[in-house]
Amino acid sequence: MTTRPEIKYLFEPRTVAIIGASQNPSKIGFKIIENIKSSGYPGIVLPVNPKGGNILGYNVYQDITLLPDEIDLAVIAVPANRVFESVKSCALKSTKFLSIISSGFSEIGNIEEEKRIVDFALKNGMRILGPNIFGIYSGSAPINATFGPGNIKKGNVAIITQSGALGVAMIGKTSFENIGLSAIVSVGNKSDINEADLLEYFCTHNDTKVILIYIEGVKHGDTLVETLRRATRIKPVIVIKAGKSKRGAIAAASHTGSLAGSYTIFSKIMKQCGALQAETIREALEWCKFLSTSPQPEGENTVIITNGGGVGVMATDSCEKYGVNLYDDISDLKQTFSTCVPEFGSYKNPIDLTGQATAKDFEVAINSALDSKAIHSIICLLCETATFDALTITSVIEEFLSKRKFTKPIVFSLFGGETLDNVLNSLKKLKISAFSDTDEAVSCFGALYSNYRLKKEKIVEEKIDTILHPLAKTELQKIKSIIHQAKSNGRHFLLPAEARGIMQYLEIKTPKSMIARNIEEAISYSEKIGYPVAMKIVSPDITHKSDVGGVALNLNDKQEIIDAFQAIMHNCKKHFKSARIEGVEIAEMITGGVETIVGAMRDNSFGPIVMFGLGGKYVEVMKDTSFRAFPLRTEEILHMISETRAYTLLLGVRGEAKKDVSKVIETIVKIGSILYLCPEISDIEINPLVVHDEKAGITALDTRIILSKDMRENK
Amino acid sequence: MTTRPEIKYLFEPRTVAIIGASQNPSKIGFKIIENIKSSGYPGIVLPVNPKGGNILGYNVYQDITLLPDEIDLAVIAVPANRVFESVKSCALKSTKFLSIISSGFSEIGNIEEEKRIVDFALKNGMRILGPNIFGIYSGSAPINATFGPGNIKKGNVAIITQSGALGVAMIGKTSFENIGLSAIVSVGNKSDINEADLLEYFCTHNDTKVILIYIEGVKHGDTLVETLRRATRIKPVIVIKAGKSKRGAIAAASHTGSLAGSYTIFSKIMKQCGALQAETIREALEWCKFLSTSPQPEGENTVIITNGGGVGVMATDSCEKYGVNLYDDISDLKQTFSTCVPEFGSYKNPIDLTGQATAKDFEVAINSALDSKAIHSIICLLCETATFDALTITSVIEEFLSKRKFTKPIVFSLFGGETLDNVLNSLKKLKISAFSDTDEAVSCFGALYSNYRLKKEKIVEEKIDTILHPLAKTELQKIKSIIHQAKSNGRHFLLPAEARGIMQYLEIKTPKSMIARNIEEAISYSEKIGYPVAMKIVSPDITHKSDVGGVALNLNDKQEIIDAFQAIMHNCKKHFKSARIEGVEIAEMITGGVETIVGAMRDNSFGPIVMFGLGGKYVEVMKDTSFRAFPLRTEEILHMISETRAYTLLLGVRGEAKKDVSKVIETIVKIGSILYLCPEISDIEINPLVVHDEKAGITALDTRIILSKDMRENK
Repeated sequence: MTTRPEIKYLFEPRTVAIIGASQNPSKIGFKIIENIKSSGYPGIVLPVNPKGGNILGYNVYQDITLLPDEIDLAVIAVPANRVFESVKSCALKSTKFLSIISSGFSEIGNIEEEKRIVDFALKNGMRILGPNIFGIYSGSAPINATFGPGNIKKGNVAIITQSGALGVAMIGKTSFENIGLSAIVSVGNKSDINEADLLEYFCTHNDTKVILIYIEGVKHGDTLVETLRRATRIKPVIVIKAGKSKRGAIAAASHTGSLAGSYTIFSKIMKQCGALQAETIREALEWCKFLSTSPQPEGENTVIITNGGGVGVMATDSCEKYGVNLYDDISDLKQTFSTCVPEFGSYKNPIDLTGQATAKDFEVAINSALDSKAIHSIICLLCETATFDALTITSVIEEFLSKRKFTKPIVFSLFGGETLDNVLNSLKKLKISAFSDTDEAVSCFGALYSNYRLKKEKIVEEKIDTILHPLAKTELQKIKSIIHQAKSNGRHFLLPAEARGIMQYLEIKTPKSMIARNIEEAISYSEKIGYPVAMKIVSPDITHKSDVGGVALNLNDKQEIIDAFQAIMHNCKKHFKSARIEGVEIAEMITGGVETIVGAMRDNSFGPIVMFGLGGKYVEVMKDTSFRAFPLRTEEILHMISETRAYTLLLGVRGEAKKDVSKVIETIVKIGSILYLCPEISDIEINPLVVHDEKAGITALDTRIILSKDMRENK
Repeated sequence: MTTRPEIKYLFEPRTVAIIGASQNPSKIGFKIIENIKSSGYPGIVLPVNPKGGNILGYNVYQDITLLPDEIDLAVIAVPANRVFESVKSCALKSTKFLSIISSGFSEIGNIEEEKRIVDFALKNGMRILGPNIFGIYSGSAPINATFGPGNIKKGNVAIITQSGALGVAMIGKTSFENIGLSAIVSVGNKSDINEADLLEYFCTHNDTKVILIYIEGVKHGDTLVETLRRATRIKPVIVIKAGKSKRGAIAAASHTGSLAGSYTIFSKIMKQCGALQAETIREALEWCKFLSTSPQPEGENTVIITNGGGVGVMATDSCEKYGVNLYDDISDLKQTFSTCVPEFGSYKNPIDLTGQATAKDFEVAINSALDSKAIHSIICLLCETATFDALTITSVIEEFLSKRKFTKPIVFSLFGGETLDNVLNSLKKLKISAFSDTDEAVSCFGALYSNYRLKKEKIVEEKIDTILHPLAKTELQKIKSIIHQAKSNGRHFLLPAEARGIMQYLEIKTPKSMIARNIEEAISYSEKIGYPVAMKIVSPDITHKSDVGGVALNLNDKQEIIDAFQAIMHNCKKHFKSARIEGVEIAEMITGGVETIVGAMRDNSFGPIVMFGLGGKYVEVMKDTSFRAFPLRTEEILHMISETRAYTLLLGVRGEAKKDVSKVIETIVKIGSILYLCPEISDIEINPLVVHDEKAGITALDTRIILSKDMRENK
């Protein structure tokens, strides 16, 4: 494989060719050149069209082969069936990046052609943005190589969007909302360049303060996770996901050709990565605006200053919802705000200046909050009242801006009629974060503090090697040979004994057990193991054993063994007439402890992920599971565990002893590692994993291991 | 008690007195008269101030006693310490309603004075609005007897607000947002008149189409529930709750003097009543605007028409979130939209007209949707694109309005820059529901369809008598005598045997059981009942038996009985040295079935409520409970049950038999009824209530009954 071009040439190309340039102002091939020109691009512009001539002062080349050598960026805007030949010609000119605007590829099922183009490009040292995109704008060049609006406002927010139409509309929206952009990139079908490649660039890009990603379906999720985790510790990354619902995912698939996976998993992994997940585009853009202009807080003590009790109560609710911490040292608050809180007001946070407050009172209160060493950020709520001189507040704030500056994060929420709306608009023009709803204002603080906490976390850069469990590595060959044995028997899952074998290699404790082929063996093995025992069907054709009546628990004597054996055989034959039955498993009964579930699986979008939750028979009903992308550090596993209700049980409730959480973590690392190291495995699920008292360890009662389907086998 | 005045005189007073009228334009006592005058009030205005004179042309009376007789509404705006004397004077003038603006009562702890005023007023046939309010505006009079803004826009939305400041600001906001009001009433401390009284009026008030309630704390929740349930079936009632969080509830308490109860219970009961719960003021006002202007839908088939794939996907997600049903008869959709969907577009709902769509294409698509018999409502998403002629859309819509009308519910969402914002504003002026965010647009449809479904439900008006369980009534005396016995022993809870006695009177099955005073009795009773048995401590001093090791299960023989007896005695004495131990209960072991919890309790805000959820030892951890106000109909109980995960278990998962849900419902009715009929009981909790297979009934394994604390006893 040839070396890949540096990504900076996509953002700061020295030469740009436009394949499919047009004289016709209604065509995309014209619009792009018009945008490049009006964006003040300082490099060389090379339009290509068989007709030749001149577009907006640029000389048009009749064929790609006639272009000078070394093209940094080629924008391709020809019909889908002519894209491949253009890409081939570009290769002859040592092109670095191709921005393929054209649609008609994987989004309409034309996967083969897309793959052919990508394979060729990569083999020839070229990288592809798109296809099915509106192009790229980069403030650093500057260059607007899109067919969107021309009036992009330069600033500090970088946008990556999977939807072209939405991207075009976002250019208009951000400009209108006074949000400046450092770049906007349409990734479309993501045939090659995806979010991770672009994040890598934006991470170290000085002009970018905040990154916004609009995503429908994830491709190469493992790389995304890895990049995103680093990026979010450097600057805030806001993610907005479309295709959360089942129907939405179907709509997304026909839109950009990428299937959205489970939203639950997506959302948990974004959380793990430290991404800020916005619920709506509106919220995402508000966060962008606020985070790109606000100073960093120096602590978590927030005060609410208000002239309305009701909005104060609502903002307090929102603070809890968004995890914003309200300062509550009453005596300090009283001292700080003594000069502005009147008799019927309140010093308790929210600081209630009452409906009698004037703009001057707010000035005093804000000043006091800025002066206070203990207060780190301010939520300021202004309500229309009979006495509030709303118009004065703008000049008060202007004075703040010109004289003492807002050295701490501050948001304003203004609630009332036309006068307050006018104030709102003037504040927006001053680049002050002002909202017409308290919840929106507090939501910005939520985003700010999520990112603040993330940056405060110590970053332990561990190599994957040290995170993986050593046993999984040393025992890998033995484990693989069990798997190959199963595969050579034509099975896509392991039998209980095989799964138990793997557990033993990983030193994950399982109950004593033996396979009995008949009643006599069942009785003798039960006596060997010691009553009470459990009995389970062993058959390659039956996976959900208890669903078909293939399990009996708590068997106390010989007679119970005989009854259970007969019942199980009867039940299983009734459900699966032709099931191959190899016998029953007799196992030690494990009592007490907390039943949990741990799992590791290969997600279509994200690759290896691990899971933890409340276990037992009713896992699906309890819906108490959490997920993370693997590998991950011990503390993060504890985080995952602590998100479940099962964790409360592990801590020991109602007078029970604390359970062995560290062994649970170890088990998750082990099964995550083996899945990570062993592509032959697609799923491992231990349910129940019984967790005993602290230091007494765990027991894996039942382990299901599913093997990956080999693509070639399926043909 | 004297008869109460008709509420209509509060909204349509023929005479209004202003106690505390003022010549000073900066005073509330002036502002109110100014507002009354400018609102065009046609009745008689009677200002009162010791100084006399004339205010805005009205002759000022020097004392209330000098006023003519028969005052419909007296507005009181004097300092708190002079309110009582004013109220007394008003009584002499046969005043009907008092609107007490003054603050300084229960909201600052001055509860006694507030109570004294209310008691006096009610005894003298007067009703009180407030205190601690900004007044009342009624479009029917018309009269603006508030000290808020004067420019109230007349319309169809009635607002009830507990916060005065917020109410004042809402007047400004609604006017600015072009939302007309039929009334706005500030209820403040709700010393007498509360939401229920006002709802009663608005229900039948022709000019009111939508009711909005801003609420912090609930008083007389039982009456509210009863009125709200009727009101929501007549017109949409939107509720916005502040003080959801713990800290917010504290802030609310110091604001209007009413304590907010558990938000979970509040929210469940609002749902039961059919109220539309808005998350933010912004959302509440958007729903008001949309619901007060939209036609009613004739069915649930919604289509999304869009020129952007991405926003289409997001709107699809929002539809799932808000319970909006997308029409999906593909062949019908294809036929309906064949003339406007281009080659790369999509007929599948969302109808994607692609980025090439013009205003004309939208016109054709909207027309097709309006013409279709199968489509009932339309979500129209407009994105800024290179080709979309945004400005034309306004005239397209104007033509719709003038020619064929929007006969079906329709919302618009416009996403883009300044041009689209201008369109948005023109549409708002045309009273078209248009938003800058798809989620907001779909949220309005969510509110519309919630209300649509509610109205479609058959209303079965049942008397409380028929809803209560007959056994609870016939056995009431026997049950009360058990309770009195316990009370006379100085206990505030019932012993297990007493609770079981009540269960028996109610024919709720309990396990066979006997009280053993010593080991010998324990063995003999166990043999009588039949092994295996359970053993539990019996002591008036121990309520949470299993927490202290006071329970042993699954005892199989004499030796196990002996061991368990000794262990239980040891454990209990260790935890409670001085516990009075009366013996142990030996009970039949119940195996199998689903463990649920059912309960009935007296909520501070709402009175009797019932509860259902997943039962067992870990109720608090599982957090799987649902609530309703009692009494309620059988179908509503089933609704409550179906909101829990426990319901999935009752339906029979993983091959298990369906469980006896009808017996669960019956049990809930029984314990709800006995709590309702028996004020001596404050709490009944059956946990676990084991639910057996269908027709096999239930068993109440453990029942706790707590008695109400008699106020006099506490002194």
